[in-house]
Amino acid sequence: MSEPVPAEESVVPRPGLSRRGLLGLLGAGAGGLVVGGLGGAAIGAAVATANAADATGVVHPFFGTHQAGIATPVQANLHFAAFDMADDATRDDLISLLKDWSYAASRMTQGLDVSATGAVGGSPDAPPDDTGEALGLPASALTITFGLGPDLFEKNGVDRFGIAARRPDALKLLPRFVGDALDPAASGGELCVQACADDPQVAVHAIRNLSRIAFGRAQIRWSKLGFGRTSKTSSDQLTPRNLFGYKDGTANILGDDERALDEQVWAAGPSWLAGGSYLVVRTIRQKIEPWDRQQLTEQDRIIGRSKGEGAPLSGGTEFTEPDFAKKDAAGQPAIDMHAHVRLAHPDFNHGIRLLRRGYNFVDGNDPLGSLNAGLFFLSYQSDPQRFVTIQRALRSDLLNEYIQHTGSAVFAIPPGAKQGSYVGAGLFA
Amino acid sequence: MSEPVPAEESVVPRPGLSRRGLLGLLGAGAGGLVVGGLGGAAIGAAVATANAADATGVVHPFFGTHQAGIATPVQANLHFAAFDMADDATRDDLISLLKDWSYAASRMTQGLDVSATGAVGGSPDAPPDDTGEALGLPASALTITFGLGPDLFEKNGVDRFGIAARRPDALKLLPRFVGDALDPAASGGELCVQACADDPQVAVHAIRNLSRIAFGRAQIRWSKLGFGRTSKTSSDQLTPRNLFGYKDGTANILGDDERALDEQVWAAGPSWLAGGSYLVVRTIRQKIEPWDRQQLTEQDRIIGRSKGEGAPLSGGTEFTEPDFAKKDAAGQPAIDMHAHVRLAHPDFNHGIRLLRRGYNFVDGNDPLGSLNAGLFFLSYQSDPQRFVTIQRALRSDLLNEYIQHTGSAVFAIPPGAKQGSYVGAGLFA
Repeated sequence: MSEPVPAEESVVPRPGLSRRGLLGLLGAGAGGLVVGGLGGAAIGAAVATANAADATGVVHPFFGTHQAGIATPVQANLHFAAFDMADDATRDDLISLLKDWSYAASRMTQGLDVSATGAVGGSPDAPPDDTGEALGLPASALTITFGLGPDLFEKNGVDRFGIAARRPDALKLLPRFVGDALDPAASGGELCVQACADDPQVAVHAIRNLSRIAFGRAQIRWSKLGFGRTSKTSSDQLTPRNLFGYKDGTANILGDDERALDEQVWAAGPSWLAGGSYLVVRTIRQKIEPWDRQQLTEQDRIIGRSKGEGAPLSGGTEFTEPDFAKKDAAGQPAIDMHAHVRLAHPDFNHGIRLLRRGYNFVDGNDPLGSLNAGLFFLSYQSDPQRFVTIQRALRSDLLNEYIQHTGSAVFAIPPGAKQGSYVGAGLFA
Repeated sequence: MSEPVPAEESVVPRPGLSRRGLLGLLGAGAGGLVVGGLGGAAIGAAVATANAADATGVVHPFFGTHQAGIATPVQANLHFAAFDMADDATRDDLISLLKDWSYAASRMTQGLDVSATGAVGGSPDAPPDDTGEALGLPASALTITFGLGPDLFEKNGVDRFGIAARRPDALKLLPRFVGDALDPAASGGELCVQACADDPQVAVHAIRNLSRIAFGRAQIRWSKLGFGRTSKTSSDQLTPRNLFGYKDGTANILGDDERALDEQVWAAGPSWLAGGSYLVVRTIRQKIEPWDRQQLTEQDRIIGRSKGEGAPLSGGTEFTEPDFAKKDAAGQPAIDMHAHVRLAHPDFNHGIRLLRRGYNFVDGNDPLGSLNAGLFFLSYQSDPQRFVTIQRALRSDLLNEYIQHTGSAVFAIPPGAKQGSYVGAGLFA
């Protein structure tokens, strides 16, 4: 990351963020620190200019109507973490954490250290504010997206943070689906942070520093690294491939399709959530070795598309609409009645489309030498029930023989923070 | 990856590689497959031209004096796998596996599918040769480097493959070091494959397909993904940072320093290994949370360099030689007697330098919410004893309080394969 811009150069008023958390983290030696408060937009402009010639220097604004990382062109790498609040955390702890996280995210997304004193600019007798592994790296299109899980509002019947009454009805545990094999330790979470960047070191740096800031107030419950995005959200992106070798996300909602975003992705309410969304997270283990032993025609039949081009089996090219009525020479449906592309298609699901933002993952191997690989499925929608509808439609999906859902979580994604405010502020107004 | 080049276009004779393994893998339906044999150099030339304008289209030759992936400029991403041979594997199995691996690697490193029929060009009634997730992706500077572990030569006193007499004395288990906390399931291995690329999907595709080719002959024992290379091996690379936030590899051996490579990296013998090397692998868990709580001066003292610039504490810039005799104002050594940079320095280790090629890793988190993070240390040297000498010198390293070695392995790295031959051929001559 770039050296911190001296606070004096900022013409934007300091956002009213509490520094309590960071100061608490830094401990006694931090008294002399000047923690600057720079508006993300001003910083972004400076950094974007400096990095204009650098492809990985893409900078996305942190403040705005919607949080970045949803409609933003999907980046190459992901580090995702679900957090739980500490048992004795208070409402003030939660508010200060969201403020501190927003402040830090508004800086890191602009290619800056986590605070104005950063990795090397503070007192030499204090621990550095920033852990330093991203020093010298550009912003790399980093986006940081915060979410709030159902248990944050009420857990075991206890309203720990005085927000139980504000939980949207739509924010609740997903129902159990046929075939689920969920690991509780890799599911759920009271808060989440999705860090996406075109450099994995930048994404890891973000999660690490946000985890550090949370120390004493919240801790990571589970986390995941992903690579090889499996969706496109920008028309100039090539459709990527999942680990079954098929193009994924051909018909995904594009980030500049305002109408589809309004209809399908942004939540209308309650008021504190308007302009936000809901995130569904599913860790889907792919049984790649059995898949790899299937013949090509069978793989194509299961997906409903051709492996090479990604065209629907009813004909055409990747972007031809599937013709589910078309019959093959034998009089059978060209696209199998239980093909993945058919069961998931909006035509059979009340027009529902999800904005997908998933990533491939490989987490070592099991004792038999099989890669522990799969799809870290992330979808944004205006109501989690939309995901439920599609997931239930996939009950007879031919693909189910080759996949297993091992993790699950759902989060409300607040709208973007206004300059000088923080993500989730509306919840406490 | 690019569509397979039709075998007819090749002007290079087919290398004499057995197709037995791949044919066996493909099963009965594979009888009609034409498995092409293209020389890597010819393919490389074609692909390099096609991708000339694409930064990730860098293509490294597979065949040559040395294996690629050692002196090659270090890439952004790593997938590493250690394999064990099947209990009932024969000498012929081992030879055919090394042939098949070399054939597949000679193609994938050129941006091609694993065979001429590839992901979609074979019989539709057969499983595809290639798993397909890298279709359309360029070579991405992929290198694939093969190694042979001590147990391959003799295990529990049994000479399974008739090569026990050819084991170099230098190839043996590393001694136990102070503080080692090794996990046997994440250590050792009879074979290893190091896949490095500038796209993680390309590196994963390589390991996955090589594992598939090995089916029935060998299986993955343990594996690791890495990102954020922690060394530079090319003078035009910026020095990267490890997860302690410090520049790593400032004084590393560069890939074009022929004299240093000859003196320090390439093995002189035995004859089948001449021009090869030895690879030492150490999984080093970094205790990043305690580290992050240390004051900056203490972090600098432990490393012996400044965090921002990476200059030795004796003064100057990153590339200034450390002056270990220099005293500070208080009359104490400017660089602590137990600083990492001092204990590891060639001046105190008989001039020994290692060619390091390590990567950062983050494998989720532990139940307390700490990131399971660290350095996947890879070093190449002409004799593993050189690593042992330095590792023993680090016995009193101040850094030891913050790290723990949890995995260990050593491999002989054969020289590069000649066009038409395979890696390790000399061992069976």
